[in-house]
Amino acid sequence: MPKDALGAPRDRLLRTTETMLREAGMAGTGIKDVVKRSGAPIGSLYHYFPGGKMQLVTEALELHAGRSNALITRFFSGKTSAATAVRQLFDSAAEGFDRAGADKGCAIGAVSLDLQAGDSEARRICRATFDGWVDLIAPHLSFPNKAARKAYAVTIVAALEGAFVLARAARSGAPFRDVGKALATALRRS
Amino acid sequence: MPKDALGAPRDRLLRTTETMLREAGMAGTGIKDVVKRSGAPIGSLYHYFPGGKMQLVTEALELHAGRSNALITRFFSGKTSAATAVRQLFDSAAEGFDRAGADKGCAIGAVSLDLQAGDSEARRICRATFDGWVDLIAPHLSFPNKAARKAYAVTIVAALEGAFVLARAARSGAPFRDVGKALATALRRS
Repeated sequence: MPKDALGAPRDRLLRTTETMLREAGMAGTGIKDVVKRSGAPIGSLYHYFPGGKMQLVTEALELHAGRSNALITRFFSGKTSAATAVRQLFDSAAEGFDRAGADKGCAIGAVSLDLQAGDSEARRICRATFDGWVDLIAPHLSFPNKAARKAYAVTIVAALEGAFVLARAARSGAPFRDVGKALATALRRS
Repeated sequence: MPKDALGAPRDRLLRTTETMLREAGMAGTGIKDVVKRSGAPIGSLYHYFPGGKMQLVTEALELHAGRSNALITRFFSGKTSAATAVRQLFDSAAEGFDRAGADKGCAIGAVSLDLQAGDSEARRICRATFDGWVDLIAPHLSFPNKAARKAYAVTIVAALEGAFVLARAARSGAPFRDVGKALATALRRS
């Protein structure tokens, strides 16, 4: 059997899980709905994900985290000022949000707000992803001391996650644009 | 029957729903679990909430929104600078988050990330609540033009919601303190 024919249902299950996490978080992502929406044969679920829902969720989170890291790295590359990078990151998020139908948030953020005491692996990924974004952004900020750079990087990451929250409620990418503008202005004055 | 004895199960159902929304969003709040956890008799559910889950959720959201509005109004009262108000709001959120067990977010934010196309009443409340916070904060900011005041107020609200996301992942109120410090510094320089 060619490799793609084996790989395809696995990828479809992962991509569908990621989409559903973005739409409704962990609690809103039922495994039966994932299988149905993905079109993958039911047998492929436990073949590729013997750990069931938690394996599917953690792998989809890793997928989403990897893509988000790449996006942040693309803007905070050192080629522009941090103010320009912030503005471009948030404008790009606004555009992506509207283009995707204005109903998909960040999978990491949506899962974070659903975490229960036993969800240690999902929590580890969410926490490590946010910490990683802060570490990617902080060195590009021009504040004189490390604590200020870290605090402002945490603020950029929090404002990005919160912009998804406001944008989901408003069904509009407008909050990203407001936030990007205000944070960029603040950085130019720092 | 005394009024309190009639009122009590209704309040318990509402408060339990609010708590569960804060812990797991709308998708993670099952009506059977609400009844069980509240200790209210099952019959009281459809007596007080004939509209079922959606009525319970929308009334719990209104309750949470009212309390949050009061909190924001308390800090943005015009008695201190906006920078001090922001710092106090976020420090107070950090303290409240840790005190409540570091596992409860904002009910409005958690529901926003779960909204589906048909959830028009819950969406209306989430959107109106965020717009209301922006309107409460914007007049206290010292930017010369209205668009800048609005953009920065949206940023404060987004950063607050996002701080809940990061705090849930980290099980720590620390993100609120970082964000409050960075936003207050930026406001002092504006």
